[in-house]
Amino acid sequence: MIKTSVASLDNNDPLREVASQFHKPEGVIYLDGNSLGLMPHCVAKRIETVTREQWGNDLIASWNKHHWIDLSRNVGDKIASLLGADYGQVACCDSISINLFKVLCAALSINSERKKILSTEDNFPTDLYMVQGLEALLGHHRCELVMVEEGQLAEAVDEDTAAVLVTEVNFRTGNIVDIAGLTQVVHKHGALVIVDLAHSAGVLPIALDKHQIDFAVGCTYKYLNAGPGAPGFVYASKRHHEKLVQPLFGWMGHANGFAFSPLYSPAQDINQMLVGTPPVISLSAVDAALDIYDGLSLDTIRNKSKQLTNVFLELLKASNASKELTCISPLDAERRGSQLSFEFEHAYALCQALIEVGVIADFRAPNFIRFGVSPLYTHFHELAEAVEKINDILVYKTYLASRFQTRNKVT
Amino acid sequence: MIKTSVASLDNNDPLREVASQFHKPEGVIYLDGNSLGLMPHCVAKRIETVTREQWGNDLIASWNKHHWIDLSRNVGDKIASLLGADYGQVACCDSISINLFKVLCAALSINSERKKILSTEDNFPTDLYMVQGLEALLGHHRCELVMVEEGQLAEAVDEDTAAVLVTEVNFRTGNIVDIAGLTQVVHKHGALVIVDLAHSAGVLPIALDKHQIDFAVGCTYKYLNAGPGAPGFVYASKRHHEKLVQPLFGWMGHANGFAFSPLYSPAQDINQMLVGTPPVISLSAVDAALDIYDGLSLDTIRNKSKQLTNVFLELLKASNASKELTCISPLDAERRGSQLSFEFEHAYALCQALIEVGVIADFRAPNFIRFGVSPLYTHFHELAEAVEKINDILVYKTYLASRFQTRNKVT
Repeated sequence: MIKTSVASLDNNDPLREVASQFHKPEGVIYLDGNSLGLMPHCVAKRIETVTREQWGNDLIASWNKHHWIDLSRNVGDKIASLLGADYGQVACCDSISINLFKVLCAALSINSERKKILSTEDNFPTDLYMVQGLEALLGHHRCELVMVEEGQLAEAVDEDTAAVLVTEVNFRTGNIVDIAGLTQVVHKHGALVIVDLAHSAGVLPIALDKHQIDFAVGCTYKYLNAGPGAPGFVYASKRHHEKLVQPLFGWMGHANGFAFSPLYSPAQDINQMLVGTPPVISLSAVDAALDIYDGLSLDTIRNKSKQLTNVFLELLKASNASKELTCISPLDAERRGSQLSFEFEHAYALCQALIEVGVIADFRAPNFIRFGVSPLYTHFHELAEAVEKINDILVYKTYLASRFQTRNKVT
Repeated sequence: MIKTSVASLDNNDPLREVASQFHKPEGVIYLDGNSLGLMPHCVAKRIETVTREQWGNDLIASWNKHHWIDLSRNVGDKIASLLGADYGQVACCDSISINLFKVLCAALSINSERKKILSTEDNFPTDLYMVQGLEALLGHHRCELVMVEEGQLAEAVDEDTAAVLVTEVNFRTGNIVDIAGLTQVVHKHGALVIVDLAHSAGVLPIALDKHQIDFAVGCTYKYLNAGPGAPGFVYASKRHHEKLVQPLFGWMGHANGFAFSPLYSPAQDINQMLVGTPPVISLSAVDAALDIYDGLSLDTIRNKSKQLTNVFLELLKASNASKELTCISPLDAERRGSQLSFEFEHAYALCQALIEVGVIADFRAPNFIRFGVSPLYTHFHELAEAVEKINDILVYKTYLASRFQTRNKVT
């Protein structure tokens, strides 16, 4: 692929102008938006307004005046529109891990005769840890983690499965699990589905309601660009609200928290997922970051995402570097998220060498390098430049070659 | 008390200059720092630096370059120095409610043959709710909330008590519980002590290590001034680290999270209290807010706090308004925190009327008005002005009298 065709892809990119809403540090090609999204200008501005004007000047009056008290719910509704979910089913609060704990408990409570939580060995570890914590707390007679390979989930569901915990886009390979198909099988066995949308939200069209997903969780600091460690979100289908029980009883989840009653009485809606006083500044950051999606279609975003990873693969194939890197992501763009991952003996070293020349990718143990593309701000010409630098390092060894070799004994 | 003596109190106040580090909105007398502290200038500045420079420019490199990965622990150590705790025992993370859940589970796990969590009816409701959530999750055979009156805690402890959950400063009355004395009794019965420091941290000298407190939790948005919904903190005494088990197994609490092992292996120190990806921007706000305490002594702070509430009471007594307001806080300054609360039939209306004339206090259901003083930024002359305005409203009815009467049928 020659430079002119990359330029024409950029020219024809319907999202080309969106990138100007983000701060891109000079000289940096950022291919790690799947770890931490770039800073949108509107987020920095909102954070300052909330800090200096709302907190600084209006103080506690802001709980009503600036709707702080409704932030978790209102931001949740904005996220819902990216998840194919009707309003009133998503809350933005706590971390993805804590939210996972809530929905695991809710699922075990709905399916109280069953104990098995089925997941995949290659799931993001913290998801598996949260189940293990619940096992330790409740005992194996009430909760048992069973792990299988990603492709074997459907056949492993049985009548003792309380819930299947699955991540839609694998953090390491980018492989997409067919959530809709899996849910049909899971529901036939009377089990529930919990989906981790960490690497889906904001880059994949999602249809939680349509596919009758039971619960979902996700984070807002990756493709949603809300800042480092921004709050997570949790989806609980309306079907389950009446029977909903999650054990982190906090005053924000109370049916009437400001009555200060000593007895807990849960809100009978998504508010029950709330626990403590909401993190106002970071929730406001999420709120602002979501404004970027106004008027954008997730189909357009997904199309560009597929095009970006396709072009990246083609450019790599056309370079000599491709001999060194083994792609562990699905080669069919339909089957992968907004990333490409490669196995390479010296992945860590390559990652460091790339950072030194301004290309930021992500290393994942033990020997994977992961390139994330964000359709909102990645340009096609950046991929061409990145491939050139990968080639320089791996093939021509022109960049910092001595340091690279010393560190990693490349021979 | 005449104006000149109030002025001389201000002149002799060793903390007089500290107030300039905070943004005080013009025309406002802020007596609600026990709900949400004023914004320190350094916090607003730090939030902007972390957002625009660290996140914006340095992106994921900031995890190491700006020590994001150690923030929970480093900020925890700074908080520890305000709690009379050695380093390595405090983490700043999640909300106070979530942290309470962790230590409740840890206490029940250490005292696994016991099920009773003893607390007070008048505790802050969310504390009681968290125990009720655990009851619901574990069943009454493993966890049982028993509530008694605040003064009866010591005599209610028995051999089936796993832990006593007590708030040092009552949120409603400001009454201080003698934590040191209570802990001795509790330990004699083999039970553990969990202290909620929400209304203590930053205004009372605390000696967690000296008094052998087992666990403590607290928040940073009140007297520590870290902003609305800022992260909570959790203290776990080193004595318990070896046997520590809290069930929210997250990758930040793993002994080696970045190994991405599918099996959880808990860190054998305070890091085990961490769960998900840390909320970097709000943790940085806490970090900056704590800098204000550099070089200040908690004894000086406590002395000024007592003086402030004493002066406020004297001024009120000297005014005619005192006839209307029944003080429900201890009259002995030694026995109360940094607040004064009053019972008054029309407390809500008074609170609203005061807000309209620039005095911000807090209403607490059903009929209490709560005035918090922050030794870091409350001046004595502000109390004189506040009392004047209370008097105007309650006795002379000069301020917005018609609106006040319409709303509340004051006759």
